[in-house]
Amino acid sequence: MAITVVGSVAYDSVETPSGRYDRKLAGAATYFALAASFFTDVRVIAVVGEDFGPEQEAVFKARNIDTRGIEHTAGKSFFWEGSYLEDLNEAKTHNTELNVFASFDPKLPDAYRDSEFLFLANIDPVLQRRVREQMPGVKLVAGDTMNYWIKDHKPALLQMLKGLDVLLINDTETRMLGGDKNLVKASRAVMEMGPRILVVKHGEYGATLFFGSAESSGSKTFKAPAFPLEEVVDPTGAGDSFAGGFFGYLASQPELTPGTFRRAMFYGSVMGSFACERFGTERLEQLTRAKIDERFNLFRELTHLD
Amino acid sequence: MAITVVGSVAYDSVETPSGRYDRKLAGAATYFALAASFFTDVRVIAVVGEDFGPEQEAVFKARNIDTRGIEHTAGKSFFWEGSYLEDLNEAKTHNTELNVFASFDPKLPDAYRDSEFLFLANIDPVLQRRVREQMPGVKLVAGDTMNYWIKDHKPALLQMLKGLDVLLINDTETRMLGGDKNLVKASRAVMEMGPRILVVKHGEYGATLFFGSAESSGSKTFKAPAFPLEEVVDPTGAGDSFAGGFFGYLASQPELTPGTFRRAMFYGSVMGSFACERFGTERLEQLTRAKIDERFNLFRELTHLD
Repeated sequence: MAITVVGSVAYDSVETPSGRYDRKLAGAATYFALAASFFTDVRVIAVVGEDFGPEQEAVFKARNIDTRGIEHTAGKSFFWEGSYLEDLNEAKTHNTELNVFASFDPKLPDAYRDSEFLFLANIDPVLQRRVREQMPGVKLVAGDTMNYWIKDHKPALLQMLKGLDVLLINDTETRMLGGDKNLVKASRAVMEMGPRILVVKHGEYGATLFFGSAESSGSKTFKAPAFPLEEVVDPTGAGDSFAGGFFGYLASQPELTPGTFRRAMFYGSVMGSFACERFGTERLEQLTRAKIDERFNLFRELTHLD
Repeated sequence: MAITVVGSVAYDSVETPSGRYDRKLAGAATYFALAASFFTDVRVIAVVGEDFGPEQEAVFKARNIDTRGIEHTAGKSFFWEGSYLEDLNEAKTHNTELNVFASFDPKLPDAYRDSEFLFLANIDPVLQRRVREQMPGVKLVAGDTMNYWIKDHKPALLQMLKGLDVLLINDTETRMLGGDKNLVKASRAVMEMGPRILVVKHGEYGATLFFGSAESSGSKTFKAPAFPLEEVVDPTGAGDSFAGGFFGYLASQPELTPGTFRRAMFYGSVMGSFACERFGTERLEQLTRAKIDERFNLFRELTHLD
């Protein structure tokens, strides 16, 4: 089943201990779409400037991603500059230019309306909600957010959360949003805000899925490991790639059972680990489904007793 | 098969967000011995002062732990005072009194000589090595250390590491000892110092086992989760309890296969999680093997796909 994703298609300049690059194609929706495209059809809603040309378009086309919802407008695309020199788990932002994103008003192309899965990547919760409201009949809605919206846009964020089935955020965001240092308690508080399933991403330590009471008769949590990488070349987009693998796998399955969610967690971790292996979207652009399934099996071996 | 453990039997005063206690029985060898005692026979080598009486002795006796190697001497037992108010993953030390430990010269009772497993808990690497040399024919030797020895006693530590089969340390210690920010690379560097198996403890994120090249034909790593606890009452002794569960299980098995080590990792995590549930050694003192196996199965459910 098709996924519609709304979020940033952008340019990044990034420095990591392994090197640096300038103004490469990036953005949450880009990473998400590339990762999810190995599992199902993906349709993107975003806005780009005049700097987004045929070369960038080709990256999406090569993965069969529908770009009709990417609006082209005068000006420059969203731009982010950051580094991971001290700590590979946490980006230091040097510069953010909203550019064309400042006046983004996401519009749903008619061709996207039959999407059964919707992913609201990390953007202004007001915009996330606007897209959500255009797709009332969708089967599953997942979304992401960040500390900035939790701190300074809480009311809008709380409104948005009511429309989510699944929220994917990291440890710090979970503790901040849930108002508790204990991750289990914070997670429960977050799930009372709307999402019945919460995925907490731990960076190099993997991720934990918390099921709401209705979702699972057995265990209420599930843990996926992160792949022990010898070199994290560039962690940019790892979280969005996790979300793409997770949600892409879910959308590819006929039924959403607890087992489907467990396997989706593993596929999320797999895609996040691939994203870190090269700069920017490089590794995702060159992947194959066979490589993905091979690593999925390695993950199983890495965690399973027998 | 019996385990001999050398390390501290001590008193702790601890403050956590859940409360505080003063001068309760503690120490690495105590936590290790209690945890391991659910799997096999345990024999302790330590030194205590006049403050160690029948009440403390009874804690060991109740778990059938051999205390003939605990030397009683004039003065006070080792004492540690610390808190976990800011961060449950990291203790803040307020006071350390070596007391009778300052002149500890560990002696192996004859009755311990047939122990096939030896655990060198975190003490001066010179003492660890002295015990190691008294047991040349032992089947498996594991040990622990800490930042203090890595920073200021490196030559003695490196000598000690040559006599270890398994080293159990945390993330920070692995990076410091291995001299690399990347955990996989740091682990490999550490394993070149002696131990052919390395267990890296990640606190609330579980633990990773790295196999040396000879140890496993398949995966070179294995991940055990930590139990998602709603309240970490007191993390003191969690790492030592992990070691006790891990090593205790290994000692109880007829063969040391990669599968044995994988299950040992889970038992380590199980015992670490129990230790955190109450103050001091309280939870370990009241446990049963049935409760332990019940949680072991929960851990499997928490991580396994099917």
